[in-house]
Amino acid sequence: MSEELKLDKKNFTEWYERVLKYAEVLDDRYPLKGSYVWMPYGFKALKLMLKKIEELLDETGHQDTYFPLLVPISIFKKESDFLKGFGGSTLRITHVGEKSLDEELVMRPTSETVMYYMFSLWIRSWRDLPLKLYQIVPIFRWETKMTKPMLRVREVIKFKEAHTAHATKEEADQQIKEGVEIYSKFYDFLKVPYVVLRTPEWSTFAGALYNYDHVTVMPDGKATELGSVINLGQKFAKAFDIKYLDKNEKKKYVWQTCYGISERALGVVLSLHGDNKGLIFMSKIAPIQIIIIPILTGEKDNEKLIEWAKKLKEELKEYRVKIDTSEDTVGSKFYHWEAKGVPIRIEIGEKEVKEKDVTVVRRDIGKEEIVKETKLKSKLKKLLEEIDENLYKNAEKFFKSMISETETIEEALKILESKKGIVKIPWCGNNSCGKQTEEKLVGEALGINENEKGKGICPVCKNKAKHMLYLGRTY
Amino acid sequence: MSEELKLDKKNFTEWYERVLKYAEVLDDRYPLKGSYVWMPYGFKALKLMLKKIEELLDETGHQDTYFPLLVPISIFKKESDFLKGFGGSTLRITHVGEKSLDEELVMRPTSETVMYYMFSLWIRSWRDLPLKLYQIVPIFRWETKMTKPMLRVREVIKFKEAHTAHATKEEADQQIKEGVEIYSKFYDFLKVPYVVLRTPEWSTFAGALYNYDHVTVMPDGKATELGSVINLGQKFAKAFDIKYLDKNEKKKYVWQTCYGISERALGVVLSLHGDNKGLIFMSKIAPIQIIIIPILTGEKDNEKLIEWAKKLKEELKEYRVKIDTSEDTVGSKFYHWEAKGVPIRIEIGEKEVKEKDVTVVRRDIGKEEIVKETKLKSKLKKLLEEIDENLYKNAEKFFKSMISETETIEEALKILESKKGIVKIPWCGNNSCGKQTEEKLVGEALGINENEKGKGICPVCKNKAKHMLYLGRTY
Repeated sequence: MSEELKLDKKNFTEWYERVLKYAEVLDDRYPLKGSYVWMPYGFKALKLMLKKIEELLDETGHQDTYFPLLVPISIFKKESDFLKGFGGSTLRITHVGEKSLDEELVMRPTSETVMYYMFSLWIRSWRDLPLKLYQIVPIFRWETKMTKPMLRVREVIKFKEAHTAHATKEEADQQIKEGVEIYSKFYDFLKVPYVVLRTPEWSTFAGALYNYDHVTVMPDGKATELGSVINLGQKFAKAFDIKYLDKNEKKKYVWQTCYGISERALGVVLSLHGDNKGLIFMSKIAPIQIIIIPILTGEKDNEKLIEWAKKLKEELKEYRVKIDTSEDTVGSKFYHWEAKGVPIRIEIGEKEVKEKDVTVVRRDIGKEEIVKETKLKSKLKKLLEEIDENLYKNAEKFFKSMISETETIEEALKILESKKGIVKIPWCGNNSCGKQTEEKLVGEALGINENEKGKGICPVCKNKAKHMLYLGRTY
Repeated sequence: MSEELKLDKKNFTEWYERVLKYAEVLDDRYPLKGSYVWMPYGFKALKLMLKKIEELLDETGHQDTYFPLLVPISIFKKESDFLKGFGGSTLRITHVGEKSLDEELVMRPTSETVMYYMFSLWIRSWRDLPLKLYQIVPIFRWETKMTKPMLRVREVIKFKEAHTAHATKEEADQQIKEGVEIYSKFYDFLKVPYVVLRTPEWSTFAGALYNYDHVTVMPDGKATELGSVINLGQKFAKAFDIKYLDKNEKKKYVWQTCYGISERALGVVLSLHGDNKGLIFMSKIAPIQIIIIPILTGEKDNEKLIEWAKKLKEELKEYRVKIDTSEDTVGSKFYHWEAKGVPIRIEIGEKEVKEKDVTVVRRDIGKEEIVKETKLKSKLKKLLEEIDENLYKNAEKFFKSMISETETIEEALKILESKKGIVKIPWCGNNSCGKQTEEKLVGEALGINENEKGKGICPVCKNKAKHMLYLGRTY
């Protein structure tokens, strides 16, 4: 591909669209708004990401399961807040071929109703608790909002949703902490900076007591939720009659939590780490970690070069390595694999074969080094770590720079309209004040950071602030 | 669980239902016919099975992708044979919430129409060929037939479908051979005996030139298709306008193949290998390969026992091992893990701790052996292989015994109504004769084994047989 990408990350929407297409992460030409086709390169990254979240859930005692995608409407309607929250964007199935169904079905927008129907059959006594399950499945939310690959879709292809049931409120609260920690570890692994916010009451998940979101800021200054950890309390337990016999033989409703993240996580990593040359994959989810480019001269020595390249690849088999022996020019190969975000490039030429060393180039800062073959393995390990750390450092710097603090609505509005990002504003804790602030800022109240005390006075009621309310504009 | 399962594999339907429920493979109580809930134990086995098919597809150059689940009806209708074949059992989506959709959507019954729309955008020149993709996704076929967990479902949760495009008919034919070989390797791995049959013209896959099925016989004598490898010819290429420029700059339609298998594969393995005690997992897909049961006496030595069990588990960490320290009696533990199909049981008691040896019991034949701790690892490896071979040997013996050969319709009918299984009957090769045979036997013509010549005379037209036609009754 010789065509110049002419990327400019300042025009984020265009950058994102072009780079995903060029790098063959996914194709946005399927004729159904909000549904995308995952190409092998992008899907490989997604699978590597999934592996990590599976590990984190497995090692904390969550068990992997798979529940049906379709929900009979009578079951879907059992919890009224949930129905109110999701009913409007849920796809409804009325016919099979020309025949109408006996009972209408809906496609899960998330699996509460599907799973909790079964929970009511499975949970009998305190011995069955806690129950900690997860599944990785497609879900469908047919929203009318603007769509964007991975970041705002109508078909989430790999929703990672965990659902737990507990004997007591305390255990459920404790589980929320575990859920938050799992997602923190996940985003630490992905080198994505975030803040954990407790969502304000008026935008809590439909049917829930409270929830926490991991939130970051995208290159265009939009705030983005990275995942939700939700304390469902007993509403679903009551709607689905999920009871257990406690040790005193008394019937009690369970306490429930759930938490989910989508492939948005990948969209965010790629957005935060990329630059004007294209993607930069952090090493752990890079479909190709090392690209070897033999500098072919068209001479008879080429065979030797390719042979050595293959030997190197074999030596580096703990990594995901590819050799590019295509007929493109060296320059366009460099350009191509940089745009595809491969973290490390190894160049080998005749000289290198003779001297048994290679040129190693970092994708993130472009630094070149000559490395002896004998030291290559340990060098690569170190370099990949350094690249990941550097990606995080830059992302974190940006993230911090995009969080502003102000005491007045006017100034906050100015920030959200120029620099963008997130603004923190004093808040008395009263819902009506929070909602008013939200409306005035034409933004979304993302929540409060519980590790942070309020400073100053609430700009609405002028009372002393209990919290700092985080607000931003989202996709 | 103390309740006696009272399994009798001769009543296969009952055996199957009871054992899947007891072993917690899946739960059939979700209130939607043909949709099941996969429990952690069963889902683990399914994932291990998926890993193998992924490996086989990856190593033959197929690339993993993910395409949307929903198909706009205008695209779904593009190939008329396909529409005729699948339209009647396809779920249709007309509404989101209370609003009707601009264009009706259908849920993929298989992904030809979804993928080939994209193929027409991707394939431009001979350089883009062959294109070999696969995906593992849920599909929906809302058939009215009887449903049965894994064996006949309406929601296939993990359909493994490969789709390829080629420049010439010869390459497509060659690809069919590769597809058949992949599935043969897969079922060899699973220790499932089969015969590969070429489906007769009149029951070929909707929109295809020809297809091959791997076929086996279930414990109740029903014939079962294990997967289809399909040569689609150019019908879809023409319907979707998938053309490439050949080396002479001439536009040509591609030739296509596709092949798919569902979780039926797991249903079949479990059905064939199990016995009157319950499941027997072949080792490669066993969620637990080794169950360690410390014979606890309630004395202070118990701690030592459990400690040793943990040490053993650690030593055997290349295997999937579990220690049962529950409060059940030893007898009910034996019973429980036998029913769950764990291939090897290790018993340890006080004597064993002292003498550093363990009792190893094979699930398939119940044979007990005392094994020194130092020799345990190599012994287990050998035993697991022996168990797998023995499961295959028994399954193969049964399979062979269920294939009968006869020259007359009368006798064939008798066999299908008493012993059941598959009957081979001489066939002249003429479709009308084949169809008549099929009708008279109230069965399904499964196809011909191309490695086998016809013997005798066609019972319908009395001409010399070209082939032996395989017939059976299916789910």
